[in-house]
Amino acid sequence: MPFKTKISMLLLQSLDGIIAKTQGDNLNWGSVEDKEHFRSKTKQIGTMIMGSNLYKVMPEHTFDQRKTFVLTSNPARFEPKKDIEFFSGSPLELVEKLTESGIKEAALVGGGLVYGSFLKANLVDEIWVTIAPKIFADGIFGYGKEKLDINLEIIGTYTLGENEILAHYRIKK
Amino acid sequence: MPFKTKISMLLLQSLDGIIAKTQGDNLNWGSVEDKEHFRSKTKQIGTMIMGSNLYKVMPEHTFDQRKTFVLTSNPARFEPKKDIEFFSGSPLELVEKLTESGIKEAALVGGGLVYGSFLKANLVDEIWVTIAPKIFADGIFGYGKEKLDINLEIIGTYTLGENEILAHYRIKK
Repeated sequence: MPFKTKISMLLLQSLDGIIAKTQGDNLNWGSVEDKEHFRSKTKQIGTMIMGSNLYKVMPEHTFDQRKTFVLTSNPARFEPKKDIEFFSGSPLELVEKLTESGIKEAALVGGGLVYGSFLKANLVDEIWVTIAPKIFADGIFGYGKEKLDINLEIIGTYTLGENEILAHYRIKK
Repeated sequence: MPFKTKISMLLLQSLDGIIAKTQGDNLNWGSVEDKEHFRSKTKQIGTMIMGSNLYKVMPEHTFDQRKTFVLTSNPARFEPKKDIEFFSGSPLELVEKLTESGIKEAALVGGGLVYGSFLKANLVDEIWVTIAPKIFADGIFGYGKEKLDINLEIIGTYTLGENEILAHYRIKK
């Protein structure tokens, strides 16, 4: 295969790896600057991948000017929408589909089980993680439920807002 | 009380908040620079607090030139050693004891349940966290087992080794 769609995982987490205090958390503990980072980065990439639980709580404007693939075991359950595709295959099958469609990069935006399944399948190439100045110790964990042993390489670190760290990593294969 | 002993939590974690892959992990996934940071920072602070599980696996040289308080429900179980005190009280009682002894600062060095109990009791003032370029998704979590809602403020961020982020936070009270 001449190329594989690059998968860039985007997430906002607490220092301890929690991405939501509860299901449907509105993430108001993240900064305005992080929301702007999310919007501009996903628009620049052009394609998003998310799980169906996250899809259900995402505000409508999240999908503007971006093509979205929603992973679900039951696509028929969802109302068809422009630029949104419901996909019932595996993470690998989705990436193969994106690659065959000539999509160069897709932003993997959650939630935790979806992040975990792509990481476990070794499909993620880069991570943009915003580390919010919070510790929750309880909630929805950002990296799934299966043991991983992933090595990262820093591409860059930045600050966002007053107290957030934005780290850009490459996953060593 | 004119002052309270400042408690500075020091930890090495993966991006996802894991501090050890298994009990007794030798932490060889942390950099030489992080080990040097740990040694110089704890020597500079002069006093360490740790749990008894961690104490049992710490190499002897960890205790050079530092006074150590080991939290254990059963102090009689341990062989007395110079500059090492076994303490069976609560985190608050230990901090009060340190304060009464005129100790200005102590380094809280783990493990996860000890970190969690000091955080839960609102006794931690600062955190020095080294974020290793690793994702484990499974192992010993660095922040205990109880829900927290802690707000942090960045004092400084640095890089350690090639791919580690060292973040210094103040806990907002």
